[in-house]
Amino acid sequence: GFATVDTHRALRVGMPEVIFAQGKTAAQVAAIARKLDGHGPLLVTRLDPDKAAPARRAVKGAIYDPVSRTLRKGRMALPTRGPVAVCCAGTSDVPACEEAAVTLEVMGVEAVKVYDVGVAGIHRVLARRGDLDRCRAVIVAAGMEGALPSVVGGLVGRPVIGLPTSVGYGASFSGLTPLLAMLNSCSPNVTVVNIDNGFGAGFVAGLIARG
Amino acid sequence: GFATVDTHRALRVGMPEVIFAQGKTAAQVAAIARKLDGHGPLLVTRLDPDKAAPARRAVKGAIYDPVSRTLRKGRMALPTRGPVAVCCAGTSDVPACEEAAVTLEVMGVEAVKVYDVGVAGIHRVLARRGDLDRCRAVIVAAGMEGALPSVVGGLVGRPVIGLPTSVGYGASFSGLTPLLAMLNSCSPNVTVVNIDNGFGAGFVAGLIARG
Amino acid sequence: GFATVDTHRALRVGMPEVIFAQGKTAAQVAAIARKLDGHGPLLVTRLDPDKAAPARRAVKGAIYDPVSRTLRKGRMALPTRGPVAVCCAGTSDVPACEEAAVTLEVMGVEAVKVYDVGVAGIHRVLARRGDLDRCRAVIVAAGMEGALPSVVGGLVGRPVIGLPTSVGYGASFSGLTPLLAMLNSCSPNVTVVNIDNGFGAGFVAGLIARG
Amino acid sequence: GFATVDTHRALRVGMPEVIFAQGKTAAQVAAIARKLDGHGPLLVTRLDPDKAAPARRAVKGAIYDPVSRTLRKGRMALPTRGPVAVCCAGTSDVPACEEAAVTLEVMGVEAVKVYDVGVAGIHRVLARRGDLDRCRAVIVAAGMEGALPSVVGGLVGRPVIGLPTSVGYGASFSGLTPLLAMLNSCSPNVTVVNIDNGFGAGFVAGLIARG
Amino acid sequence: GFATVDTHRALRVGMPEVIFAQGKTAAQVAAIARKLDGHGPLLVTRLDPDKAAPARRAVKGAIYDPVSRTLRKGRMALPTRGPVAVCCAGTSDVPACEEAAVTLEVMGVEAVKVYDVGVAGIHRVLARRGDLDRCRAVIVAAGMEGALPSVVGGLVGRPVIGLPTSVGYGASFSGLTPLLAMLNSCSPNVTVVNIDNGFGAGFVAGLIARG
Amino acid sequence: GFATVDTHRALRVGMPEVIFAQGKTAAQVAAIARKLDGHGPLLVTRLDPDKAAPARRAVKGAIYDPVSRTLRKGRMALPTRGPVAVCCAGTSDVPACEEAAVTLEVMGVEAVKVYDVGVAGIHRVLARRGDLDRCRAVIVAAGMEGALPSVVGGLVGRPVIGLPTSVGYGASFSGLTPLLAMLNSCSPNVTVVNIDNGFGAGFVAGLIARG
Amino acid sequence: GFATVDTHRALRVGMPEVIFAQGKTAAQVAAIARKLDGHGPLLVTRLDPDKAAPARRAVKGAIYDPVSRTLRKGRMALPTRGPVAVCCAGTSDVPACEEAAVTLEVMGVEAVKVYDVGVAGIHRVLARRGDLDRCRAVIVAAGMEGALPSVVGGLVGRPVIGLPTSVGYGASFSGLTPLLAMLNSCSPNVTVVNIDNGFGAGFVAGLIARG
Amino acid sequence: GFATVDTHRALRVGMPEVIFAQGKTAAQVAAIARKLDGHGPLLVTRLDPDKAAPARRAVKGAIYDPVSRTLRKGRMALPTRGPVAVCCAGTSDVPACEEAAVTLEVMGVEAVKVYDVGVAGIHRVLARRGDLDRCRAVIVAAGMEGALPSVVGGLVGRPVIGLPTSVGYGASFSGLTPLLAMLNSCSPNVTVVNIDNGFGAGFVAGLIARG
Ligand SMILES: Nc1ncnc2c1ncn2[C@@H]1O[C@H](COP(=O)(O)O)[C@@H](O)[C@H]1O
Ligand SMILES: Nc1ncnc2c1ncn2[C@@H]1O[C@H](COP(=O)(O)O)[C@@H](O)[C@H]1O
Ligand SMILES: Nc1ncnc2c1ncn2[C@@H]1O[C@H](COP(=O)(O)O)[C@@H](O)[C@H]1O
Ligand SMILES: Nc1ncnc2c1ncn2[C@@H]1O[C@H](COP(=O)(O)O)[C@@H](O)[C@H]1O
Ligand SMILES: [Mg+2]
Ligand SMILES: [Mg+2]
Ligand SMILES: [Mg+2]
Ligand SMILES: [Mg+2]
Ligand SMILES: [Mg+2]
Ligand SMILES: [Mg+2]
Ligand SMILES: [Mg+2]
Ligand SMILES: [Mg+2]
Repeated sequence: GFATVDTHRALRVGMPEVIFAQGKTAAQVAAIARKLDGHGPLLVTRLDPDKAAPARRAVKGAIYDPVSRTLRKGRMALPTRGPVAVCCAGTSDVPACEEAAVTLEVMGVEAVKVYDVGVAGIHRVLARRGDLDRCRAVIVAAGMEGALPSVVGGLVGRPVIGLPTSVGYGASFSGLTPLLAMLNSCSPNVTVVNIDNGFGAGFVAGLIARG
Repeated sequence: GFATVDTHRALRVGMPEVIFAQGKTAAQVAAIARKLDGHGPLLVTRLDPDKAAPARRAVKGAIYDPVSRTLRKGRMALPTRGPVAVCCAGTSDVPACEEAAVTLEVMGVEAVKVYDVGVAGIHRVLARRGDLDRCRAVIVAAGMEGALPSVVGGLVGRPVIGLPTSVGYGASFSGLTPLLAMLNSCSPNVTVVNIDNGFGAGFVAGLIARG
Repeated sequence: GFATVDTHRALRVGMPEVIFAQGKTAAQVAAIARKLDGHGPLLVTRLDPDKAAPARRAVKGAIYDPVSRTLRKGRMALPTRGPVAVCCAGTSDVPACEEAAVTLEVMGVEAVKVYDVGVAGIHRVLARRGDLDRCRAVIVAAGMEGALPSVVGGLVGRPVIGLPTSVGYGASFSGLTPLLAMLNSCSPNVTVVNIDNGFGAGFVAGLIARG
Repeated sequence: GFATVDTHRALRVGMPEVIFAQGKTAAQVAAIARKLDGHGPLLVTRLDPDKAAPARRAVKGAIYDPVSRTLRKGRMALPTRGPVAVCCAGTSDVPACEEAAVTLEVMGVEAVKVYDVGVAGIHRVLARRGDLDRCRAVIVAAGMEGALPSVVGGLVGRPVIGLPTSVGYGASFSGLTPLLAMLNSCSPNVTVVNIDNGFGAGFVAGLIARG
Repeated sequence: GFATVDTHRALRVGMPEVIFAQGKTAAQVAAIARKLDGHGPLLVTRLDPDKAAPARRAVKGAIYDPVSRTLRKGRMALPTRGPVAVCCAGTSDVPACEEAAVTLEVMGVEAVKVYDVGVAGIHRVLARRGDLDRCRAVIVAAGMEGALPSVVGGLVGRPVIGLPTSVGYGASFSGLTPLLAMLNSCSPNVTVVNIDNGFGAGFVAGLIARG
Repeated sequence: GFATVDTHRALRVGMPEVIFAQGKTAAQVAAIARKLDGHGPLLVTRLDPDKAAPARRAVKGAIYDPVSRTLRKGRMALPTRGPVAVCCAGTSDVPACEEAAVTLEVMGVEAVKVYDVGVAGIHRVLARRGDLDRCRAVIVAAGMEGALPSVVGGLVGRPVIGLPTSVGYGASFSGLTPLLAMLNSCSPNVTVVNIDNGFGAGFVAGLIARG
Repeated sequence: GFATVDTHRALRVGMPEVIFAQGKTAAQVAAIARKLDGHGPLLVTRLDPDKAAPARRAVKGAIYDPVSRTLRKGRMALPTRGPVAVCCAGTSDVPACEEAAVTLEVMGVEAVKVYDVGVAGIHRVLARRGDLDRCRAVIVAAGMEGALPSVVGGLVGRPVIGLPTSVGYGASFSGLTPLLAMLNSCSPNVTVVNIDNGFGAGFVAGLIARG
Repeated sequence: GFATVDTHRALRVGMPEVIFAQGKTAAQVAAIARKLDGHGPLLVTRLDPDKAAPARRAVKGAIYDPVSRTLRKGRMALPTRGPVAVCCAGTSDVPACEEAAVTLEVMGVEAVKVYDVGVAGIHRVLARRGDLDRCRAVIVAAGMEGALPSVVGGLVGRPVIGLPTSVGYGASFSGLTPLLAMLNSCSPNVTVVNIDNGFGAGFVAGLIARG
């Protein structure tokens, strides 16, 4: 009744519908998940640990991960041109990165994790240039002042997807500050997704890596 | 004196330094252009018609285009995997699109123009699906409510780069409204660049198309 | 004591006073509802399930609906010129739509529901053009980027009432983004009500349908 | 070249395309006006006096009005159910009202003008209740605190279209304050259009009056 | 230790120090209240019912009022020139008004209450003109669009203190909208205090009434 | 035609209508001034020097002052209870103060000027306490951080009217910062008017001084 | 795994890594604290009382302070040139001040506390000039209108670090108002840190005092 | 008349009064400059080239610099502990840096210039570590995303003064974005001054260097 499943979506845009669990009850998530099961890989995002059980029971073989707050099953088998790097400035940005990494995994794209390499200790990201250089796209998550995408953008010749996070306090305004910073990056290879939107960042990076 | 040319930039990020003329005098632009001439293709953006002459004289063979407000010379010869579509909602968004198209041209990537296909007459963009489908990435410029990237994002299985423009008045707040709209797109293949940043949109799309 | 009932309101503006339960105690709502009962149809909005019982007991024959969070009794018997369409972009917008639909019902106007037809799958709303065309006004609820009213506005020759919802996260800023988007619609038949104001949207659409 | 005229627009949404002259050159406006001439009534908005001459010459019989900054020719001959009232709080809001009134005229709907009846002298609007009561819809323009639509909304049983204007200074923030005020009106028959959007207000009111 | 009581305050600014309980523990409030007791009248504001008991026990004869969330004891005995009116638009604004009224009472100034006279039913405030006319100052509380101070300001030749409240939802932005509206009032006798600052409104009105 | 003069205004609110010249042509100002001349004292505000001549010729005996940008003639002869102090933080705030002082003069109230006493040299305002103490109300203009009203509010037992000015740059946001600061004053005798609204500040202070 | 300890930090920037406990679990904090223990002084900030126990057990000799919400152990033994003053406007600003004071203590710098000296009673801060004058830098915390740093800045010839706090309500917007006020200070020796960032204020002041 | 010169300022806060020319006429600037001449070093900021001549003639020996838009004469002879570095991200930030450098020069402090070392080419700032390491404080100017202070803050053990500039377009919002970014720096040695406030940055750095 309440939801019309968009069954041709995978054909049209390269990925089956993904369930956004925030604002839905555990029962609603389970019902939609059951309906989508068997029509390609399954991905549920923003699924809190205390709401995951019904969907898990509904979909045999599904894997729940509490850090990324995702439930997934299966992966797409399209050819890819190389891995995607997923970087973050601080440890608090890890959940957003993991949401992106799980999305890449479901798309069949390898994720290279480069975590806790914030700009206040610039040697850390410079030490990982090799990892960055072999990737087709780079996702860079950051809260607070959101400076890391600009630095990474100046190191690589690939698209960089800035992923602002709500990590911070006071004048970070729940992620507004890193969002604005990334939009104004002096590295022109940076594009930006919504605050905490790890799924969107992973999805676009996956499309780029697929070719 | 005042500017340090970053000579290894093309090697590092795939494009020589581009001159942003806004806030510089005609003489400064000409001086920097002369210095960069001969070290790969040249691109100057945000160059107003009344400031273009000195740079034009300084760089033999440079082409000035008043709509995109660009001066360019040469193009990169890297292999590409296909064209990039450049769409816009209304006729006032054309200059931003042309800045993107010129950037693509300098990168050696073909631009497919799909103009004046705003959502208030949705049949117009639907009629151009063939053009969209053959592209490796799609740039979508829009001012006012910034709805077009979401619609295009639902039609194609490629990365869509939302390019908000300052076209509009009142509560469009000089492009803030389309910027926010694109960041909240329900089509997850949409990433966003700064308001009126046609160059950035073109550059990222070009990187994607190059592969 | 604390509230002066505006008894001539129905004569003056075509609808008896409606009780906004948010910020009132269950007892206060019940007391006002009892006072208004018998002076025309009754409508209480924003009434949470756990606060509904006293008012329900106070007003014999009242119907409580947990999705729209409304309590209602009776309907106005004024002539109408046709139905009103109530559309929404995603399933999370349904509660706001249902608040509008219940308001229409109390006004004696038929509501045609066109749900889950968001712009990321534009074929869904195009498939419902027949439903839209037979209506005197169209309410369009959307959160996130708020693009649907512009698309619907380009399909119909009737007033479209944009109903922004607080559905979304990050840069949707609790509904600010769809609100701004709808105010900047390139379809000039769109007017806008406050975020999540399903009642207001339903009321104005009902006035239009009445003639 | 640069503009695709939407020729079926009048059939689809009840009004031929209207030319928004802001941001276009005098020559561009004249060219589009000439193209539209003869395909139903013509309306150009936001046309400054010093840019009007070419369009005026291009379209024989067109009337230019400097207060509303409009150029028009002809009117639609659809049946209407009654007039529309156009109110304003202060004399500085008159241009926005006149844009609305000219739009109504082109749609073939009578406009009843109720000007300079701001809330600081509430007797003025109360004295005009007869004029308001005979209308099918009421447009209420106001800058500064934007209070007038709420007062008018409490007097009439018809849709009220709040038209916030950029009149004011300081904390009116170019019309943001009256816009927000109107969106939060305690009169539920008020819907809102963009700041200074007299055309949109007139167009929706005209659709309501047509029936 | 942590607080330096400003003992000369009553002499300097006409009122002893008032305790703002928000953000203080029940024990802290009681300790400060005990220290101030006996040095003139006592007033504690923003004291939630569940935090009131200790202070009540500490100050013999203190009266706690849960609507205004105040604790008070005694009143100043300075001569006054007349009463102050306290008006509000809706029933949800009553707590802010009562905070103002209690403040006036402690200052020894009579408060004339004119409640639930919002602008959507303008006859209600017009019916109370006699009450307004005999006052030396008028406090007007309103949430949502904050229009009432402008209307009252046009009726009286006395200072009007606009008291914006956080009553509303969506685009009222927790009282920002009525605050901005009141600052832009077209009635020039309106000045404004902070959102929900009933104490400040009452205090200034009391100073005016004292002469 | 375009303006309805509110002739009973002086009786109702204690001051004849005042002409706000901003946004009006020199001819319009002169026409309204001529109409009001002879019906009590005349005051025109926001009248730029290059627009003043026609109104000056129209009203015999009118005085134009370029600092306050006012034109005035006559003064009211109502009894007053004492003077009003007009303070400012810096020399750039003088025009707003002079607008207030001229308003007071037209109301027949003495203005005591206490200029250039900003908080960065706190000894300056302390040295003027005698002047402040003999006044019935105090107007305090400040741009930048808007701190002066709080300091003055702690020195006097009279109403303080905070007058934020647009003096400053960067994060003063055209007066938003001092406006917000004054609204949050820890001195509870401070109320606030709109940015640069010297007239409103003067008018309210005049009403208080009149009694 | 999840955190890379930056071991050379003390050498590079003069202070070992400080643990920001907000958003981390009690176990995570304890784990990081154990790892850092023994590599110089230890400081944990934003550690709520109910989360402190595990870290306290993990680090022998650590001192937990509930007002500043810090856990600390040891202090640096670098030479300093004098003390740092820590001032606050109201009692609610004390926690932010104590966070700064504890930071100074860990850096081996003496903190001179000057509390509850807000501008509404300006004599209080003037009475403490001797304390201010002997310091190398002054930290000034304030919520609400944030005026105190400007006053202090005009009294001393040393750097003043403005520390805006989230103390206040309504238009203080969680500390935005004092932040903006301090950025616009008319005392040019004022620089500003993030809202409630007592640690940052203390750290910079400590660097200045060290020389 | 209009300005009270604060003659004890140099004694109290370590610097004579500095003239802020913005918003003053050329004649006013010259008059104040003449008055201050001879009472210690002179500094005028924000003095546009076309307004500089009168002040230049008024003060014999004064030097005007069009890049920093300053006029100066003399320098203070207090002992300093070392130089201050002045860095900038891009060439457009040079004017703000030069305002800081001239201020330092007038204070008798050496300025070490490290220009055009933005984060998109991180090798540039790393190459200048020697220059940074010998300074007592570092000023870092940046527009756009404002990332450079965080990077520099992680390289040095000295106070870093973030100087946001209005360089940028679109979502940089005239310097708001770098301002917010710097306030949220993950390097805790960063404090911030107002947008484009080179004078304030230079003054505080000079106070730190003096000791
Ligand atoms: N974490 C996420 N953030 C943003 N969008 C998402 C996320 N997860 C899923 N989505 C999108 O939300 C759509 C489903 O929305 P719904 O129909 O309300 O379940 C999917 O097709 C995705 O495009
Ligand atoms: N004053 C106005 N305000 C807002 N929209 C307008 C106005 N005048 C015309 N329009 C709309 O702008 C469209 C034309 O835009 P364009 O294709 O850029 O000329 C018309 O079809 C109208 O819907
Ligand atoms: N409800 C209120 N709103 C604003 N300010 C208040 C309120 N109640 C008390 N105050 C002010 O807060 C001051 C006390 O603050 P504190 O020293 O933190 O207790 C008093 O002297 C009053 O000026
Ligand atoms: N560029 C500047 N930015 C901010 N404040 C400045 C600047 N130049 C001077 N000032 C300050 O402005 C004060 C003079 O202001 P005024 O009395 O209006 O001339 C000086 O004492 C400085 O503290
Ligand atoms: Mg770390
Ligand atoms: Mg068009
Ligand atoms: Mg769906
Ligand atoms: Mg008028
Ligand atoms: Mg009511
Ligand atoms: Mg001065
Ligand atoms: Mg206190
Ligand atoms: Mg450069």
